[in-house]
Amino acid sequence: MTKPGRTDDLVDAVRLALVSGVGPRHRQDLVVRFGSPSAVLAASVAELQSVGGIGPKIAARIAAAREEIDAEGELALAAAHGIDVLTEADDAYPRPLRQIHDPPGVLFRRGTLTPQDELAIAIVGTRHATRYGLAQAERLAAGLARVGFTIVSGLARGIDAASHRGALDAGGRTIAVLGSGLMNIYPPENEGLARDVAASGCLLSEAPPRMVPLSGAFPQRNRIISGLATGTIVVEAANRSGALITARHAYEQGREVFAVPGAVDSRLSHGCHALIKDGAKLVESIDDVLAELGPLAEKVACEDGTVVAQPAELLLNEIEQQVLQAIDGQPISLDAVAAACELPIHRVLSTVSVLEMRRLVRRVSGTQVVRA
Amino acid sequence: MTKPGRTDDLVDAVRLALVSGVGPRHRQDLVVRFGSPSAVLAASVAELQSVGGIGPKIAARIAAAREEIDAEGELALAAAHGIDVLTEADDAYPRPLRQIHDPPGVLFRRGTLTPQDELAIAIVGTRHATRYGLAQAERLAAGLARVGFTIVSGLARGIDAASHRGALDAGGRTIAVLGSGLMNIYPPENEGLARDVAASGCLLSEAPPRMVPLSGAFPQRNRIISGLATGTIVVEAANRSGALITARHAYEQGREVFAVPGAVDSRLSHGCHALIKDGAKLVESIDDVLAELGPLAEKVACEDGTVVAQPAELLLNEIEQQVLQAIDGQPISLDAVAAACELPIHRVLSTVSVLEMRRLVRRVSGTQVVRA
Repeated sequence: MTKPGRTDDLVDAVRLALVSGVGPRHRQDLVVRFGSPSAVLAASVAELQSVGGIGPKIAARIAAAREEIDAEGELALAAAHGIDVLTEADDAYPRPLRQIHDPPGVLFRRGTLTPQDELAIAIVGTRHATRYGLAQAERLAAGLARVGFTIVSGLARGIDAASHRGALDAGGRTIAVLGSGLMNIYPPENEGLARDVAASGCLLSEAPPRMVPLSGAFPQRNRIISGLATGTIVVEAANRSGALITARHAYEQGREVFAVPGAVDSRLSHGCHALIKDGAKLVESIDDVLAELGPLAEKVACEDGTVVAQPAELLLNEIEQQVLQAIDGQPISLDAVAAACELPIHRVLSTVSVLEMRRLVRRVSGTQVVRA
Repeated sequence: MTKPGRTDDLVDAVRLALVSGVGPRHRQDLVVRFGSPSAVLAASVAELQSVGGIGPKIAARIAAAREEIDAEGELALAAAHGIDVLTEADDAYPRPLRQIHDPPGVLFRRGTLTPQDELAIAIVGTRHATRYGLAQAERLAAGLARVGFTIVSGLARGIDAASHRGALDAGGRTIAVLGSGLMNIYPPENEGLARDVAASGCLLSEAPPRMVPLSGAFPQRNRIISGLATGTIVVEAANRSGALITARHAYEQGREVFAVPGAVDSRLSHGCHALIKDGAKLVESIDDVLAELGPLAEKVACEDGTVVAQPAELLLNEIEQQVLQAIDGQPISLDAVAAACELPIHRVLSTVSVLEMRRLVRRVSGTQVVRA
């Protein structure tokens, strides 16, 4: 993804990301203040300290970074191991992540991202899942993957792994966001799963490739999981589970939060029940998810050529999709829809009724319809 | 409960209740129009038909009721079998039932009603309960009975029976509302349970004692179950379960609706999940119930001498209850509370903090408190 002429910017973006003690919010504040990662690295210690939260120690580390941090080496290492590096300047940088208030400055990636990955749902939960939880994670992931969603999770044991596996088994796409570097898959038993994810989606991390798993990195990683997705489903979570942190990030990012209920005598359902009490949507089936998701911020172009403006469209059959594609923001007559779709008018009428029921279109008069 | 001088009114109230085809709403409309059951029975067929919904057949039956219906015989039969008869004119008629829009005109009762029975929670659910559902019904009923709630249910197999049993095992009170007459306990296997309920609460029915179980009577019976209670908990219910009708009655009566979640792959939890999606409160423990119940319409005098204005008070320990009883709708100084309770001021301060947290009292100044 490194474009000609952008190499220095990229190197400096990576260098700034490697300065220890500079978290995503500080980094964002610094870049906004000085204009670019390169300008941040060229600033004096005094200038750096004028940014809120930047003390003398961190300011000194940033100012010394050009001499002390081998960003070129990290980039060469990444390239040698098939790892791409994306910054916010790249077109391939995931659009939903640009909308959160602390997007990662650099993303290391193994695998691919497609435009359709913007239709994403995160599925997360406890590492110590029950058979019930694992079965629900797999079932929901498979169902959502089948209708076109990319499943985002964290490659952890338990619910995360079951979610990735469910998407893969359904022939869908999936993204794993790691808290460690991409050359340090954690837990080790998921190395095979990581290879499969990279082949049908990608592995992402904001940490440089050799970074070891640090427990402090995982809560911060969770904002990327929720930030990539339109909504986050929590499948099983005890009180104080990391999955609840992901749910909180989703709320703060203005994304939907869903939770799967379970037996009240199962400790691992308490976190989900607490979320539901606080307003998360109760999920039994993928219909509960699709019904709840409002219009997307921007339309998504799918690989089959259709354009999706609202996730509920994904549950439409072929004729419903065809009729919906003929209707846009401008009122159009039912006769014109019938002509465009080459369908008999009675078929168009019954199909429009279905689309109205799903709140995808509405009638502006007896004979004219428009996207809802 | 028959008072001297009211005998004719009682006989006519029972007679009107025995006219087939006159449901609670028609009866209510007729009594409002003519002034009393006796006046309804004295009205002409033409006058009766002027009431909406009363056709010629029903009007003829009402007009003939004094000759054809042996209300005195029913009352004698009830008395001979230890069954009391309550009309809305009786002080013992349950106050919460007076507030619904279609209260039963006559209630047949075996057992007792106490003022504290106004602190009631209904627990209902499927007849085909799982072990999980039965365990939750028993646990919640026992817990609520222990803190002072009377448990109301329908004496059916499954969740109903477990709820009555849970209350009885905890040494609490319970009320069973039947769809059949009190001399026709249904299902027969619950006859023993019915005896226990009558000994620690009561059996109630609006049907005359010998009425056989008619399936049509059960949905109508459900409005009495929810109408007796501050809130209704649905424990397990498939879609279209009768328990959902009880929940709908509770909503229409302005009472709280609670539902116990379960595994999404259990058909018997679908009804509960549908209720939660529609806004019912998710219940894991009795705390979830107590926290949700607002102030009672009227204060309830308990057998231990305390007066309860809000169910959350029931979870208070002895000192908390003592301090709360010293605080009413008029601001009072903390010193005065300490004097009234004969407690050291630091104890009053810490206790008031607990009561504030539970939103039972609030400070009006640094030194004065009042009921919230």
